[in-house]
Amino acid sequence: MTLSDDVLGRARVTDNDELRDYYEELAAYEAGALWTVANKIEPWFPQPASVPVLWRYADLRPLVMRSLDLVKADDAGRRVVMLTNPERRDVAAAVGLLYTGLQIMGPGESMTAHRHQAAALRFVVEGEGAWTIVDGQKLKVGPRDFAITPNWAWHEHGNESADTPCIWQDGLDIPLVNALDAGFYEVHPDLYQEPGKVINSSLLTYGAGSMRPVGPAGAWSKPYSPLFAYPWEPTYEALLDAAKASDGSPYDGVIMEYGNPLTGGSVMPTMSAHMQLLRPGEATQAHRHTGSVIYNVAKGSGHSVIAGRRFDWSEGDIFCVPSWAWHEHANASASEDACLFSFNDFPVMRSLTFWREEASTDDGGHQPIA
Amino acid sequence: MTLSDDVLGRARVTDNDELRDYYEELAAYEAGALWTVANKIEPWFPQPASVPVLWRYADLRPLVMRSLDLVKADDAGRRVVMLTNPERRDVAAAVGLLYTGLQIMGPGESMTAHRHQAAALRFVVEGEGAWTIVDGQKLKVGPRDFAITPNWAWHEHGNESADTPCIWQDGLDIPLVNALDAGFYEVHPDLYQEPGKVINSSLLTYGAGSMRPVGPAGAWSKPYSPLFAYPWEPTYEALLDAAKASDGSPYDGVIMEYGNPLTGGSVMPTMSAHMQLLRPGEATQAHRHTGSVIYNVAKGSGHSVIAGRRFDWSEGDIFCVPSWAWHEHANASASEDACLFSFNDFPVMRSLTFWREEASTDDGGHQPIA
Amino acid sequence: MTLSDDVLGRARVTDNDELRDYYEELAAYEAGALWTVANKIEPWFPQPASVPVLWRYADLRPLVMRSLDLVKADDAGRRVVMLTNPERRDVAAAVGLLYTGLQIMGPGESMTAHRHQAAALRFVVEGEGAWTIVDGQKLKVGPRDFAITPNWAWHEHGNESADTPCIWQDGLDIPLVNALDAGFYEVHPDLYQEPGKVINSSLLTYGAGSMRPVGPAGAWSKPYSPLFAYPWEPTYEALLDAAKASDGSPYDGVIMEYGNPLTGGSVMPTMSAHMQLLRPGEATQAHRHTGSVIYNVAKGSGHSVIAGRRFDWSEGDIFCVPSWAWHEHANASASEDACLFSFNDFPVMRSLTFWREEASTDDGGHQPIA
Amino acid sequence: MTLSDDVLGRARVTDNDELRDYYEELAAYEAGALWTVANKIEPWFPQPASVPVLWRYADLRPLVMRSLDLVKADDAGRRVVMLTNPERRDVAAAVGLLYTGLQIMGPGESMTAHRHQAAALRFVVEGEGAWTIVDGQKLKVGPRDFAITPNWAWHEHGNESADTPCIWQDGLDIPLVNALDAGFYEVHPDLYQEPGKVINSSLLTYGAGSMRPVGPAGAWSKPYSPLFAYPWEPTYEALLDAAKASDGSPYDGVIMEYGNPLTGGSVMPTMSAHMQLLRPGEATQAHRHTGSVIYNVAKGSGHSVIAGRRFDWSEGDIFCVPSWAWHEHANASASEDACLFSFNDFPVMRSLTFWREEASTDDGGHQPIA
Repeated sequence: MTLSDDVLGRARVTDNDELRDYYEELAAYEAGALWTVANKIEPWFPQPASVPVLWRYADLRPLVMRSLDLVKADDAGRRVVMLTNPERRDVAAAVGLLYTGLQIMGPGESMTAHRHQAAALRFVVEGEGAWTIVDGQKLKVGPRDFAITPNWAWHEHGNESADTPCIWQDGLDIPLVNALDAGFYEVHPDLYQEPGKVINSSLLTYGAGSMRPVGPAGAWSKPYSPLFAYPWEPTYEALLDAAKASDGSPYDGVIMEYGNPLTGGSVMPTMSAHMQLLRPGEATQAHRHTGSVIYNVAKGSGHSVIAGRRFDWSEGDIFCVPSWAWHEHANASASEDACLFSFNDFPVMRSLTFWREEASTDDGGHQPIA
Repeated sequence: MTLSDDVLGRARVTDNDELRDYYEELAAYEAGALWTVANKIEPWFPQPASVPVLWRYADLRPLVMRSLDLVKADDAGRRVVMLTNPERRDVAAAVGLLYTGLQIMGPGESMTAHRHQAAALRFVVEGEGAWTIVDGQKLKVGPRDFAITPNWAWHEHGNESADTPCIWQDGLDIPLVNALDAGFYEVHPDLYQEPGKVINSSLLTYGAGSMRPVGPAGAWSKPYSPLFAYPWEPTYEALLDAAKASDGSPYDGVIMEYGNPLTGGSVMPTMSAHMQLLRPGEATQAHRHTGSVIYNVAKGSGHSVIAGRRFDWSEGDIFCVPSWAWHEHANASASEDACLFSFNDFPVMRSLTFWREEASTDDGGHQPIA
Repeated sequence: MTLSDDVLGRARVTDNDELRDYYEELAAYEAGALWTVANKIEPWFPQPASVPVLWRYADLRPLVMRSLDLVKADDAGRRVVMLTNPERRDVAAAVGLLYTGLQIMGPGESMTAHRHQAAALRFVVEGEGAWTIVDGQKLKVGPRDFAITPNWAWHEHGNESADTPCIWQDGLDIPLVNALDAGFYEVHPDLYQEPGKVINSSLLTYGAGSMRPVGPAGAWSKPYSPLFAYPWEPTYEALLDAAKASDGSPYDGVIMEYGNPLTGGSVMPTMSAHMQLLRPGEATQAHRHTGSVIYNVAKGSGHSVIAGRRFDWSEGDIFCVPSWAWHEHANASASEDACLFSFNDFPVMRSLTFWREEASTDDGGHQPIA
Repeated sequence: MTLSDDVLGRARVTDNDELRDYYEELAAYEAGALWTVANKIEPWFPQPASVPVLWRYADLRPLVMRSLDLVKADDAGRRVVMLTNPERRDVAAAVGLLYTGLQIMGPGESMTAHRHQAAALRFVVEGEGAWTIVDGQKLKVGPRDFAITPNWAWHEHGNESADTPCIWQDGLDIPLVNALDAGFYEVHPDLYQEPGKVINSSLLTYGAGSMRPVGPAGAWSKPYSPLFAYPWEPTYEALLDAAKASDGSPYDGVIMEYGNPLTGGSVMPTMSAHMQLLRPGEATQAHRHTGSVIYNVAKGSGHSVIAGRRFDWSEGDIFCVPSWAWHEHANASASEDACLFSFNDFPVMRSLTFWREEASTDDGGHQPIA
């Protein structure tokens, strides 16, 4: 779908000396002629600078491990290998306005507490001893668990394992916050929080989902989920249950959104997260939508076709889909499930009424591969 | 707290012959003098006609069972012993504007489908074979399970057991619907619905609570919960979990509201339901609030003090608390939990901004017993 | 549309001695058999006790005036002739769960302040000096002005005219509040409020409607309109303007709802109000809906057909339309506008999801007149 | 308030050869070390690239006029001199993610219709014949009138004056839309819309603000205001009225937000607009907040101090305030009002929970001027 700009309704001014003089004069007053940039800044459809990228865990893991020796946790703030899109390094974005990275915590390590306007989420990749304290609540998380650190919530992390490091994937909306000139940051005045005595108390209080606590716990008015950690087992079970009652989505298999149990909304106002199940042999059809997505392969192996390029993935791999790029997924196994964790900026798209979605109708819903 | 009406600011007109003539003249025009009724219709605080009542399951069960022989299900429409408050028989209310009754279905029986503006809910008391089809979705429910039949949803019931009857408690807002002149009723054109193939599909789809389905199932826009049945086991487990993270309410022990997993709101726009846990030996303090409540003793035994009267209860008993009546609950056992199921009209109180709540501060929060 | 109850799906139990014994036994336990009342309490469609009534101002005015001499304002609390529906006198309702009356204040008179859970509204019929102080804000209102006294807002009234009385129509939801056992009442501790210096400040602050104040005035969080008085002139002008851009409603002519300028919602959570314009010669078609309505003829003369009965009206007359009654309106003049003020309980119908509406398709949309 | 990064809780890794090698290796995998950029991308407080700028209408007007001869309207698409912040030329932003420009239409001219995801607003600076057709509705606008062209609404403009050009200021969220990779654009299939017969119909229908149309017009469900044009006269009158009832804001004088009359929300989901009145001699105190603002001097003259720099302004001048910059305003006249129109991205800040605000407490609320 290449649309020509040489039509009535688009800017088609031919340059000449007089205009060039005029443009110079405008520039002297911090001004310019709209028609010189109109077609570029009002494109027919989104023109993201971001491209699809797949980061192999097999490549990254040794590098991440190496950082344990290279820098002290306290010097680094957090020991993180960030993943950046080739044309988005200046804003530290993995895709669109989303940041991601792999964070490692050595055995017995813990880090100081801070808070920032940017919202954060974690998806645990390996290791058994990871914990985080979010606004005074201590959470313990293991592989494939999902946790949130909402904006401006105090948080600090650590690893209580005696011998193995923990690695999780961080997702943040830092580039979004900066694009909107809204970033704030504070170091905790005591450097460390005093956690409450009950571990995973939000899970005990809100984990049942359809049972709402009465009283102060039910009167939660913050703009993010009161449930801070979503363990893997009930998540996976929810997908298996849903698969019994529905065929799922033609584009995503059986897919569910991590929700705020008190509102049904997304876990945070700027980012949402999904877990999806590709059944043995399942290959979905292509669709595209506004909004950027970063995936982590939680289980199994397969491939995705994104903007006409094929990316083969297996457990721990990370890949991204830029806004408005066609994408489809396939499970490589005829006998095993594959599961993709992902997070995105859809809540922003929806709040600002920028959400659009389109299904591919060509070629049985599949893209030609370049 | 007895407040006198003989004060400035209340109606204090002394009757006389001239006024009596005047009132007669007004009556001829379908009119009257406000001051003759002002103090009555604008009381200092609520003056419900309803009184606290306890209905013993031991008394009612034989009567309910007898109805199996006395009337055919198809003739009765539904075979139900309704429970009525002494001063509210004219509107078939158990308390305030809430209706309740015990419905029995004989082995192998099934009943025709209808729908009505009134919303209905069920709490299963005994029997293993009960089912209901709600808007084409077949639900199977057992003891202590909770299910809803939202307003204007087609529904029909039955009992697939070969040998034992099933009894559940019905709760409806029929008196409310009638007070607002809003009642509609339809018999299903085919007399019976064609249910979908998956049993309890809403539980498979929405039961995880904090995982929201993506796509049509997540885009549910009806004003009631998409989850139609709430089984006992996870409900009880949720209470036990919550008790680990919180001391609960001083008035209600550990109490949770059955919620709409997509909105966190009440299960239906006119009625909500709770399950509460009184820990061994627990005796709560008194509070009062607007809104009427009907309880069913789900587990254990104990007593409640309501408006200064003590009511002892055990499993299967039903009792009610009128609006603005003080009430407190106590578990009789030092070693076993007690659980109270209840439903109420709080969503109405909240929608109309009529909700008020007050804690007792006298005598350690306990009422003197009359 | 008469629907028979002698069909499968309705209660059709034939009485006999055994059943009569059974019913007696049930009654001893505050219980009954649902099938004896099922068809009555679950009607095919609403069966209001209220009937259409028209109260002529010419009849009522002399009686209202007479109350000035018969009772002192302070003894009466408020000097009001209330209007009651023949079958709803027990709850002081004019129709459904709505109360109305004509209140008179003598020259120079003022009354003490109180507040109550019931919400109140006023529509001024005659007199130039009326004022009311609502939560400390003094309002002056004249003929055809509309004002609100939201629930639990302190209010007191008076008439600053030296020689003429003022009469306004009161509308309250007292019967609704009582039906829900939610009534509270307080006399102002100082008997009178200390009003702010600016008269009609809410009109100055919020009257522009589409311009929202920034800061505390814009952060209003109460569940009712911050605009307490709606003068006649801009209301009428709004109708004339709307008539230029639209043909209006086939059932109501050009009709607009008095709105909360900060939310667009109804002025109060339990009652809403409309002003409608019947253009010269206009006769609308019949429709019906749930919810009760009380009208005041603000301007002109004409007639309404309600549930098949014709009611002729002229300025100052009051009439009511019960829930689900067909109704249509006609302006008697070929050259002059007619305007109907009305208030209703539609917000209740909508909050509780009881709202239904139906257009007449018979006979060109007109009812046969009995 | 300069905060040091040389503290525990910030990244403080010292560079060395080993690390440099490591960084190179990471780069090969589209990765990097977070600690090398952490302090920059998570600043203590917002660090906008935008600076305060004032564009004098006296400077710009001749240049804008000249474009009439330099380019044909149809070739330019729109004949607009855009205003760009020195460090934001790459994204065509005047400040933050907001675009603005001065558009000129020659006598008798009209332009083709298009629509785009970006939302647009207009504030008329001079000329009497300007019109715009928005989604089929023709609006006529004159000096100081405000109009909106919501996202994805068809729109086309023209000038029906026989002899004078019209100039208005455009405001768009183009940079925001592009930052989120969400831009779409379409030329109208017929090149021109067929407007409805009634001019300014939204003003006739919704202009009363506090009177809400009943029926389809009241059931508007689009995410922007149904009122498309806000004339100057009632806007100014609303400010004068509000000034009688309130002292206004210490930071902004008497300020009101152009509102969606059906919801009370902002006119569009991504941009809001205000008109504010600085009374004769009024000088406000400084405050700062997240979100960017672009002002147009609607009336009078004065100055603003922004981030410590003084900018003197008179009618027609445009200036901007970047996110988190201190700012205060002063009316230069002791006898005349000054009015500032402004638009902003506050709805984005609020939707994404990025809104913060702070009052200056130093020096009587005034900034030292650099």
